[in-house]
Amino acid sequence: MIRVLLSGQRMDWEEYGELLPAALTDAGIEAEVIRERAPRSPETIDYIVYAPWSDMKDFSPFTGAKAVLNLWAGVEDVVTNETLTAPLARMVDPGLTAGMVEWCVAHALRHHLGIDRDVCRRDAAWDPCVPPIARERPLTILGLGVLGCAVGGALSDLGFPVTGWSRSGKDVSGMTCLSGEDGLVEALRMAELLILLLPLTPATEELMNAERLTFLPKGAILINPGRGPLIDDDALLAALDSGHIAHATLDVFREEPLPRDHPFWAHPGITVTPHIASATRPDTAVGVLVENIRRGEAGEPLLHLVDRFRGY
Amino acid sequence: MIRVLLSGQRMDWEEYGELLPAALTDAGIEAEVIRERAPRSPETIDYIVYAPWSDMKDFSPFTGAKAVLNLWAGVEDVVTNETLTAPLARMVDPGLTAGMVEWCVAHALRHHLGIDRDVCRRDAAWDPCVPPIARERPLTILGLGVLGCAVGGALSDLGFPVTGWSRSGKDVSGMTCLSGEDGLVEALRMAELLILLLPLTPATEELMNAERLTFLPKGAILINPGRGPLIDDDALLAALDSGHIAHATLDVFREEPLPRDHPFWAHPGITVTPHIASATRPDTAVGVLVENIRRGEAGEPLLHLVDRFRGY
Repeated sequence: MIRVLLSGQRMDWEEYGELLPAALTDAGIEAEVIRERAPRSPETIDYIVYAPWSDMKDFSPFTGAKAVLNLWAGVEDVVTNETLTAPLARMVDPGLTAGMVEWCVAHALRHHLGIDRDVCRRDAAWDPCVPPIARERPLTILGLGVLGCAVGGALSDLGFPVTGWSRSGKDVSGMTCLSGEDGLVEALRMAELLILLLPLTPATEELMNAERLTFLPKGAILINPGRGPLIDDDALLAALDSGHIAHATLDVFREEPLPRDHPFWAHPGITVTPHIASATRPDTAVGVLVENIRRGEAGEPLLHLVDRFRGY
Repeated sequence: MIRVLLSGQRMDWEEYGELLPAALTDAGIEAEVIRERAPRSPETIDYIVYAPWSDMKDFSPFTGAKAVLNLWAGVEDVVTNETLTAPLARMVDPGLTAGMVEWCVAHALRHHLGIDRDVCRRDAAWDPCVPPIARERPLTILGLGVLGCAVGGALSDLGFPVTGWSRSGKDVSGMTCLSGEDGLVEALRMAELLILLLPLTPATEELMNAERLTFLPKGAILINPGRGPLIDDDALLAALDSGHIAHATLDVFREEPLPRDHPFWAHPGITVTPHIASATRPDTAVGVLVENIRRGEAGEPLLHLVDRFRGY
């Protein structure tokens, strides 16, 4: 009988508290799933399922933990926690990936086709204007993890010429892959649409600073479903005000919820979405949790292990 | 030396007047491309390229015409012209198909994800609400021609469970195909999103009448990039007002431009786009025209011939 602690908000407990025990039983794993904020005998906990915004910040009592299984793709809140010594796994949930593809494709096409004009139309103006088709609209994705590759693949399938950039260099079919500092400049110079899907690390914080924003072609669109601090907020506002960037659709922010007095809310060139680009879907994510617990018990390598040095 | 008449508006003449002669020359076809409203010796014209809204309504002087090559996918304006006795070909342009896929995917995702709420937001409300993912949103396409199949394929690739309906019955991979009257009812009953891509014929006019609109699930979304008269306008307005249909995005109308006093313009449940869902793209369409002229000269069967009896 292993012990699995759900460390998160009540919302997570309710969903996973039902699904996880059933999925573990189905997999033939005898387990007790615990939903207490301060469980007794923390040293006997085998696995910690860690939800975002968990109020648990001290992992040191969990001396027997074989792994911490993060519920979301981003780990920047937990990866720097020095009390965490057990292996840390990111969530790579097929449901989260599918949702992210849908959100990115939707907003890329929305900007590509200029749909806001029709949605927000207030007068009876028949002004046909056929936009270019996707193959005439170069698009760049920064970050070629599971999400960047899936989003790039879907947009490439729709005809967009997709350039993908990653720090280390990847080879992904259907897109032009660039890497390094020179590659970043080249990837930005051709990006009529730019999508940020990088993890947040010291190396990516404010990657989109004032200088790099100027590398984008005039009238470029910026879409950020990655992490808020990837962008220098003031530099983005300046680039929008100058007309160099035509529009930004932002799902993530340095502070969330985005404060009511933040200038992003009122700026006509910014669309704010409230961190809903994608979410872990419990029905698919429990399968990933159970597989990692099975691997842990069988002594097999865990899936999606975080490199604590790289930060993702 | 064959003679090809461009019969259309000046806009069409300018674009095709440059591209078509060059493409014919490239294909080794000696041709004179004529851009006159009333060409001399009409009996010597070999092919007529026919643009929509052409003011040429009498084909009888063109006694030597080997084919009329329509520039757009829809042929309802010309198919019933009794002076037309030459074979009539529809345009199946890869560029038009690509544009239609982009527009349909964009609006399907826009409604699926509820993006209007974010685009039209006027207050600083952080109200995260993660929508269902595509695999949980059944979608139906009426019409399984080249456009319906391409749109259905792209939406299926994104995860939507796609049902396709056609009068005669088709078998298209990636979607459930239904046909006939019973099949239509079944296809409508499961359509949280409904896309109309039928040709306009006497059999399809007002297909979406008051009764068939009631077959849709409550809160369904209607997307019409096909032809305006496929819908009973008054029945649609009533279904929107009752809340049975949540929203309609309409690109085509019984009368175009949509009259300024038409209730569609002001209805909060309707998005009007000015017949821009897709257009024939001259750079790809000239290739289709040239191939059909080559076939005509070689005595080979023409591509995309219209069945005058069916009307498409």
